Amino acid sequence: MKIYDLESLPNPLRVRIALAEKGITDLIDFISIDVLNGEHRHPEFLVKNPSGAVPVLELDDGTYISECTAITEYLDHTFSGISLTGKSPQNRAMIHMMQRRAEQYLLDAAVGYFHHATDGLGPKLETVQIKAWGEQQRVRALEGMRYFDAVLSNNLYVAGDNFSMADITVFAGLAFADSVNLEISSELENLIIWRNRIAKRPSISGL
Amino acid sequence: MKIYDLESLPNPLRVRIALAEKGITDLIDFISIDVLNGEHRHPEFLVKNPSGAVPVLELDDGTYISECTAITEYLDHTFSGISLTGKSPQNRAMIHMMQRRAEQYLLDAAVGYFHHATDGLGPKLETVQIKAWGEQQRVRALEGMRYFDAVLSNNLYVAGDNFSMADITVFAGLAFADSVNLEISSELENLIIWRNRIAKRPSISGL
Repeated sequence: MKIYDLESLPNPLRVRIALAEKGITDLIDFISIDVLNGEHRHPEFLVKNPSGAVPVLELDDGTYISECTAITEYLDHTFSGISLTGKSPQNRAMIHMMQRRAEQYLLDAAVGYFHHATDGLGPKLETVQIKAWGEQQRVRALEGMRYFDAVLSNNLYVAGDNFSMADITVFAGLAFADSVNLEISSELENLIIWRNRIAKRPSISGL
Repeated sequence: MKIYDLESLPNPLRVRIALAEKGITDLIDFISIDVLNGEHRHPEFLVKNPSGAVPVLELDDGTYISECTAITEYLDHTFSGISLTGKSPQNRAMIHMMQRRAEQYLLDAAVGYFHHATDGLGPKLETVQIKAWGEQQRVRALEGMRYFDAVLSNNLYVAGDNFSMADITVFAGLAFADSVNLEISSELENLIIWRNRIAKRPSISGL
């Protein structure tokens, strides 16, 4: 299998953590996409993913799978080991619900802020910036941190008692937020404690 | 089980079609939320779903599940009959990938246009409108129709050879787009033929 990505970006990080959790990183041939120079917008890449986003997983039969949730579903159902997408119907539902919240409330919000209200990838690539939208996404990301802090006051993990892809998404969201100076308020102790705990998992500390 | 929703809205439509496909509509007690008067923003409702969105599924043990994908995962894994989320790992991945595209490219784009670049739910509820963003979402929704037309030139259904939750999302997206005057261009014949075929499914024609 191949993965087209750029290691430093948040969505590639999500899949790389998922691979490490499943213990299958060695099965992947990583191909670097030069996102900073717009390679993800070239027609050749858009065939792989019309959204123009990394990562993309290419299966051995040539099928392309994009979107982190879809890639994680594939990996989780193909390989044994820890379950990242849940086993019971209720567990699966909670994980998918929290996965969407982790995207909407935090990761996608921070990414929206970056592209619309900061220099983003620079003037050549950021051809449509809507500053008011970006600012709204900044507020949303900070509120998202507050939401997950509340969730983690009751739960050991984002979707309940077990680690899942939703934890990966919140972790990657916070890492990206850091990189664009959206920092966790020091009063969000549950979130900070959870983050320090998650950072020690071999799938993350070993990256 | 209970579902809190408002029948006329696109996301409630998605879950109602999923229930009909599974043949389990009769198991649900529907509770109407007065979205047009802002009931979805009341603290009482935000406990059920902090996103302030319908539908929300309440299980008999009091668990709340929101987000259409999460609700569909729950229903699909709890009840027998047609599979809406796929069986093989690859099939699951393709369905989840196309589900996200159906949301991002079409349904969420049309909803974004509605809330930001039209009167939306009216001045009392649309307190932050970013017109430029809404206009961008309009363009995105129309491009999304073009994308799905191309997909359906090769595929019988949105995610391949079988009907899935991704078809439901594209169908609900087109229905909502219609209602806000984003019409399918007559040249998108594959999409139009697919839509007419899907509309005849008992889960939709019988609603």
